[in-house]
Amino acid sequence: MCDACVMESVKQKMLSRRSFFKAAAVGTAGIAAASAGIAPPALAQGHTGVTDLTHELYEEFPTFFGQQQFFREEKFNYAKDKFNMFELRVNEHTGTHVDAPLHFSADGLSVAELPVEKLVVPLAVIDIRQKASADADAQVTPDDIKAWVAANGDIPENACIAMLSGWSAHLGTDKFRNVDANGKLHFPGFHVEAAKYLLEETKAAGIAVDTLSLDHGPSPDFATHYAWLPEGRWGLEAAANLDKVPAKGATLVLGAPKHRGGTGGPARVFALV
Amino acid sequence: MCDACVMESVKQKMLSRRSFFKAAAVGTAGIAAASAGIAPPALAQGHTGVTDLTHELYEEFPTFFGQQQFFREEKFNYAKDKFNMFELRVNEHTGTHVDAPLHFSADGLSVAELPVEKLVVPLAVIDIRQKASADADAQVTPDDIKAWVAANGDIPENACIAMLSGWSAHLGTDKFRNVDANGKLHFPGFHVEAAKYLLEETKAAGIAVDTLSLDHGPSPDFATHYAWLPEGRWGLEAAANLDKVPAKGATLVLGAPKHRGGTGGPARVFALV
Ligand SMILES: [Zn+2]
Ligand SMILES: [Zn+2]
Repeated sequence: MCDACVMESVKQKMLSRRSFFKAAAVGTAGIAAASAGIAPPALAQGHTGVTDLTHELYEEFPTFFGQQQFFREEKFNYAKDKFNMFELRVNEHTGTHVDAPLHFSADGLSVAELPVEKLVVPLAVIDIRQKASADADAQVTPDDIKAWVAANGDIPENACIAMLSGWSAHLGTDKFRNVDANGKLHFPGFHVEAAKYLLEETKAAGIAVDTLSLDHGPSPDFATHYAWLPEGRWGLEAAANLDKVPAKGATLVLGAPKHRGGTGGPARVFALV
Repeated sequence: MCDACVMESVKQKMLSRRSFFKAAAVGTAGIAAASAGIAPPALAQGHTGVTDLTHELYEEFPTFFGQQQFFREEKFNYAKDKFNMFELRVNEHTGTHVDAPLHFSADGLSVAELPVEKLVVPLAVIDIRQKASADADAQVTPDDIKAWVAANGDIPENACIAMLSGWSAHLGTDKFRNVDANGKLHFPGFHVEAAKYLLEETKAAGIAVDTLSLDHGPSPDFATHYAWLPEGRWGLEAAANLDKVPAKGATLVLGAPKHRGGTGGPARVFALV
């Protein structure tokens, strides 16, 4: 086949593939498939579905500091080179991403040093959507954690405790950063006392938020970051689809990047349900 | 506490944490813990261990083209700023990384478009270490796949078929790229006929190699890339620790990056065993 024929043939195949895949490409594939009466994908050892807790990353993805933090440059182009390839430039703390202990400590664990058994862990989701919709500066408190335990039992060892504030619904609008006239941000986060409670009362491995920071927007001092990360714990910021997973029982897989000495980075995060 | 006191206190805590974590920070945490008689971490739904199939990424990580492809720049420094943060610059095809269909097609699926049920999949490991040790240009052939099936049963739907050539043991030495006097590379890969066989006979989602390319080093035409990727399948290159997982029965979690329009990228990859 000539090049043009090859490309046309490939394109036709891709079109049919795309429509095949597109039908399945939803955030909560297994659940959606199951609720649609379709057999879920074959997962080992009893999992029935995978929920993607990762937002797509793009140039305009909002950032804590307000500046663009993700860039890409085309290095090779299919029309010219017969393959595509980009070089990426990205601040570690961009998109759905991990904070490693080293982010807020002098010599804490880098993102590459986090032990793998702290990356595939039980997921506990604390739903504060009601108070967050009434107050953008709402925080997860020790009482919220105690209420979760009363309803669901003890926080499992190595758990990730996730805040579901409903904020990911605001991605793409100004409300995601929610900056006021004085330049202060307003979105929910973990109260420092909640972080301390988890350190004292549990063996949790990480905390996750569906906002741009572990601390709530107006925090003047990153108190939660400083309480939590130097203790060898990780954080996950800008998580997606926490409203699509159960409060208890899912396994979170933190696909943290593994670059030497990294303080964190964009991660692929799944919940196995 | 004054800043210096805080830092000293944090450092003391980190030192004890580090030693705690370091003991557990091995590639195959669950398996190592289990074989050492220690209870494995609490994984949901029956998994007993996690194996990290990801190499650490660092500036000198070898690349197909031979040029450095990973760079980092310090943006904030704990001693000066009370937190650490880097900006990264990385070619998508660096380290343990994914090839998306778009890498070798005009308009195939980007890495962000791969459906999640194609990312958490059964893992089939084909061991060609014996022939690879005798011939650096060895390839996985249809016969190797048939031999795997004869021993282990059919290739499961959505499987990842991984080549275990033993090549990851050469990382850090010249033998990983194994360039000859004419500049040609020599390492194992998938024969194009094996890729075609998988397309025709199975519903595999991806193939993985422990070398720098899906095609073996001396390939003049990327025949396997062109046969496989445009069909809506993904590839995983420079996988680690494939010698530490069973031939059959593990679940591979492909923590592919999710940047819009990406042709692939460094991934965090686990095997749940
Ligand atoms: Zn961060
Ligand atoms: Zn590649």
